[in-house]
Amino acid sequence: MALHKDPSIATRALVPDVEDFPEDIRQKIDEVTEKSGFTPNVFRAVASRPDEWRAFMSMHDSLMDRDTPGLTKADRELIVVATSAENSCMYCVVAHGAIARIRTKNPLISDQLAIDWRKADLDDRQKVIIEVAVKLAMTPAEVTDGDQQRLRDAGLTDEDVMDVGSIVAFFAMSNRLAHWGGMQPNPEFFLMGRTPRQK
Amino acid sequence: MALHKDPSIATRALVPDVEDFPEDIRQKIDEVTEKSGFTPNVFRAVASRPDEWRAFMSMHDSLMDRDTPGLTKADRELIVVATSAENSCMYCVVAHGAIARIRTKNPLISDQLAIDWRKADLDDRQKVIIEVAVKLAMTPAEVTDGDQQRLRDAGLTDEDVMDVGSIVAFFAMSNRLAHWGGMQPNPEFFLMGRTPRQK
Amino acid sequence: MALHKDPSIATRALVPDVEDFPEDIRQKIDEVTEKSGFTPNVFRAVASRPDEWRAFMSMHDSLMDRDTPGLTKADRELIVVATSAENSCMYCVVAHGAIARIRTKNPLISDQLAIDWRKADLDDRQKVIIEVAVKLAMTPAEVTDGDQQRLRDAGLTDEDVMDVGSIVAFFAMSNRLAHWGGMQPNPEFFLMGRTPRQK
Amino acid sequence: MALHKDPSIATRALVPDVEDFPEDIRQKIDEVTEKSGFTPNVFRAVASRPDEWRAFMSMHDSLMDRDTPGLTKADRELIVVATSAENSCMYCVVAHGAIARIRTKNPLISDQLAIDWRKADLDDRQKVIIEVAVKLAMTPAEVTDGDQQRLRDAGLTDEDVMDVGSIVAFFAMSNRLAHWGGMQPNPEFFLMGRTPRQK
Amino acid sequence: MALHKDPSIATRALVPDVEDFPEDIRQKIDEVTEKSGFTPNVFRAVASRPDEWRAFMSMHDSLMDRDTPGLTKADRELIVVATSAENSCMYCVVAHGAIARIRTKNPLISDQLAIDWRKADLDDRQKVIIEVAVKLAMTPAEVTDGDQQRLRDAGLTDEDVMDVGSIVAFFAMSNRLAHWGGMQPNPEFFLMGRTPRQK
Amino acid sequence: MALHKDPSIATRALVPDVEDFPEDIRQKIDEVTEKSGFTPNVFRAVASRPDEWRAFMSMHDSLMDRDTPGLTKADRELIVVATSAENSCMYCVVAHGAIARIRTKNPLISDQLAIDWRKADLDDRQKVIIEVAVKLAMTPAEVTDGDQQRLRDAGLTDEDVMDVGSIVAFFAMSNRLAHWGGMQPNPEFFLMGRTPRQK
Repeated sequence: MALHKDPSIATRALVPDVEDFPEDIRQKIDEVTEKSGFTPNVFRAVASRPDEWRAFMSMHDSLMDRDTPGLTKADRELIVVATSAENSCMYCVVAHGAIARIRTKNPLISDQLAIDWRKADLDDRQKVIIEVAVKLAMTPAEVTDGDQQRLRDAGLTDEDVMDVGSIVAFFAMSNRLAHWGGMQPNPEFFLMGRTPRQK
Repeated sequence: MALHKDPSIATRALVPDVEDFPEDIRQKIDEVTEKSGFTPNVFRAVASRPDEWRAFMSMHDSLMDRDTPGLTKADRELIVVATSAENSCMYCVVAHGAIARIRTKNPLISDQLAIDWRKADLDDRQKVIIEVAVKLAMTPAEVTDGDQQRLRDAGLTDEDVMDVGSIVAFFAMSNRLAHWGGMQPNPEFFLMGRTPRQK
Repeated sequence: MALHKDPSIATRALVPDVEDFPEDIRQKIDEVTEKSGFTPNVFRAVASRPDEWRAFMSMHDSLMDRDTPGLTKADRELIVVATSAENSCMYCVVAHGAIARIRTKNPLISDQLAIDWRKADLDDRQKVIIEVAVKLAMTPAEVTDGDQQRLRDAGLTDEDVMDVGSIVAFFAMSNRLAHWGGMQPNPEFFLMGRTPRQK
Repeated sequence: MALHKDPSIATRALVPDVEDFPEDIRQKIDEVTEKSGFTPNVFRAVASRPDEWRAFMSMHDSLMDRDTPGLTKADRELIVVATSAENSCMYCVVAHGAIARIRTKNPLISDQLAIDWRKADLDDRQKVIIEVAVKLAMTPAEVTDGDQQRLRDAGLTDEDVMDVGSIVAFFAMSNRLAHWGGMQPNPEFFLMGRTPRQK
Repeated sequence: MALHKDPSIATRALVPDVEDFPEDIRQKIDEVTEKSGFTPNVFRAVASRPDEWRAFMSMHDSLMDRDTPGLTKADRELIVVATSAENSCMYCVVAHGAIARIRTKNPLISDQLAIDWRKADLDDRQKVIIEVAVKLAMTPAEVTDGDQQRLRDAGLTDEDVMDVGSIVAFFAMSNRLAHWGGMQPNPEFFLMGRTPRQK
Repeated sequence: MALHKDPSIATRALVPDVEDFPEDIRQKIDEVTEKSGFTPNVFRAVASRPDEWRAFMSMHDSLMDRDTPGLTKADRELIVVATSAENSCMYCVVAHGAIARIRTKNPLISDQLAIDWRKADLDDRQKVIIEVAVKLAMTPAEVTDGDQQRLRDAGLTDEDVMDVGSIVAFFAMSNRLAHWGGMQPNPEFFLMGRTPRQK
């Protein structure tokens, strides 16, 4: 598979052409493009090998497309925005900030989280989730049993607790892939979900 | 799939029984167990869902089982040990420290890297790799084009450079999964590769 | 002058009613309100005493309303966004982010700066300005003669160099006032300057 | 107004001649000089423009010349010394250290605060004030409602609490202006208030 | 006394020949060599002057060769390993890690402490000791009366408490001497105490 | 030897009575007291056991009472003041600040160093010494061969270079002993060397 540079996608990464991808991957990208109206750059930027691409997307979807009472799809996006902002990850904050605005139906929440999660407009359960998630992202050795108990006390199940950790961990990886590759957020993401009609 | 606690594997994670895994996973675990003489705890600790397990292992193997002149299998393990030590990740340092000793045939290198990578017994190419890898692991936003150029100047190809980033990123995830779950290194790892006959 | 709490303006500060302000202040607030279409919360949130209010606004306008070839009005707003983001100051990032979008005519620049100024879409002169400004904001004792020389080499005059320092310093104050008071950005700011027709 | 360099005042700033200042400013400087026996360098070093000078001094005096039971003039100087020391600001620590010695009639307190405020000879109310002030100065996003409640519990009124924040914020600005300009403390300050007869 | 470089002992220090040492020092080194089977490099690396050598060893032995119910010889080695690991001190972690394995009869404890003391296999008393010791080593100004009280509550006497501080302090010195000199741990240390027969 | 608390000497340490010390120690303390006019608190605060006391003082005198062209007695005190200030050590900054003023005949230098060593009135050789010394004190693992070469280039001999490291290391210990014990600087130190007649 030929790789080349495309600074509109990523300033440093080698990116493949979509048409060079195997059929199953091309098909998935086509679906996303149709649904979103554009192809999010991550689909070409982070994974230059088909097996790594499949693993990355499989893990992402398994963690982010679940919806439980203790950890909704919207909550999962909030975790991504807050921890990615701590890592100064432009792609993840902008792209998942757009999704978070849409899923929460709150046009202000992503900017709030990205700038100062401590003062963002969150309910008590969400505050605990974000606080513990940021701790795992930034000072992972300091996480304690007590941190996980706080999540259970806030209404998360044992599986939800595991998912909090897995989401933080997955985006610790994604943030570094994005920084390493100089991944660019598509301009479309910046405006998505900011006004009622765009939700 | 039933999940339960097993503190000999992980103090906080929910772990599945191997026998509950699907056939393909059980088979892979059997192979590793036969080859190593024991089942490394990561195979039960980090992934409670078959799809996540498959993705995690696929990504790991794609990155760690490659061997190029610019980035050997041994070099890849050195990256894991040094960056995981910066994250105080006991499982990753101990388990991959064992593999690094074996692959480098150097019984001292892993302890050196884990304690003070700046003074470890590395050649010039390895020093650059480790220095840049640690930078990406710990202060990812500060990575520059110049850091990647240093790797190319040291003899790495463009694909090797991408792999450095991907390995660091993958273990940024693994380190956090291990901390979150309280994953325990198997006692066998501590002694592997420390004496000539064990190489 | 009676002070009271108004959480739509600031969660912790005591804020005055505009009608209680002396005539000169009320007049200035009326002008801003007419021009902006709303009253930015800072006008009521940071200054509970008329003399402090006048001094704060006088200093702000003296620094921000100047326009020189080496340091345009737009450049000045970029400094505010980048350094305020380092301080996680929601009011300053959102409000001045809006102004920066309008003055630069670039709807993406403020989010880029707030998330990762190192990768924002800046020209070389602006990059030096932002890098030095962030250094003064976050590690002021480490600023050197060389940092100021870099600004002059990039085309700033001696007065421009002084202004860079004064703007950073003024917003080091503003950021802390905003955090202390829990100042809320008006919702209008979040969307300003994001689409062509809104410029 | 002509500006020039004068390293006895500031190694990097452009400083004006006093005689070039407008009449109202010259008069104020004359008053201070007569009272102190020398002209503190800040009067020429931080403000090269008359309007900025007036705003700076007005804000300073409004905050520092107040005296309330919960926050005396002496207490206000202690805040300046402790937070300026955290910022390694030589001018502010030396000049306000002198004033703090005089206002507290304690010749040791300023050195104690500047070196290790945690072990300085403070009463319980002062300890809370300094601890919260240092937090706002150094990690402003982490300030909570609870921090302000601690101040009220220690006897500060709502206005005193606002003043703690405003003083910290004002000197966050001053510290950066002093570092940027390389402002020099007048030699006279080092010895003021150190012996009984000099109080 | 002639000094020269010997990179097998220390990459940067000037080291003396043992035979050039005064008789009392040579005798002590001979004893250690006979007991250990090799001469630990510290005996030649850290002290180029006989008086400093005698003082260093006297202080070390006074602190480390005591054995009290509240602070056993093994406990003292654990303090050394944990705090030296925080300082990335290769010589101290490797050499005292070996002694700690032998004294605790636990072949895993030193690697655990060096990588992540928070998750090491310690009892409650030891956990408090290590936590407070690391605090003194890394953020000494933040130590409080409460930290020392925690030690007494865990069963340490007043003299034990003093010894915790003295051991941490002594190795704060040793770690810096080892870094400054580039002191090399003898290869023998890496394997000592790792298997039952080597205890 | 009876130990007790004496908060005028140290708020937390157990201190011995001078009369309980062995004859050789009492004699040395008498000499210092006669020379200084008071007994510096360190002589009772840091060492509760005669052997540790002797070792501490022997090491101190060996390092601090030497005087070489490349590293004068005054230079050695400057190292102590600057590194102890980084550790917020009140006793060491105040006591050695007094000695540094006397030895340099510069009444301002100690306050300058303690507040912001980067802007203190040092010559080029001294600047290099202090910069490298602070690096060893605060981030010891990051010291390089190049740092030591900078010292030699500034005119220090190999033995001087070793002494820089040993002084920093010794005061890394002393600072922590002082913090642990809550050691109080004698009031006399604060004023010593501040006026010409006191030199």
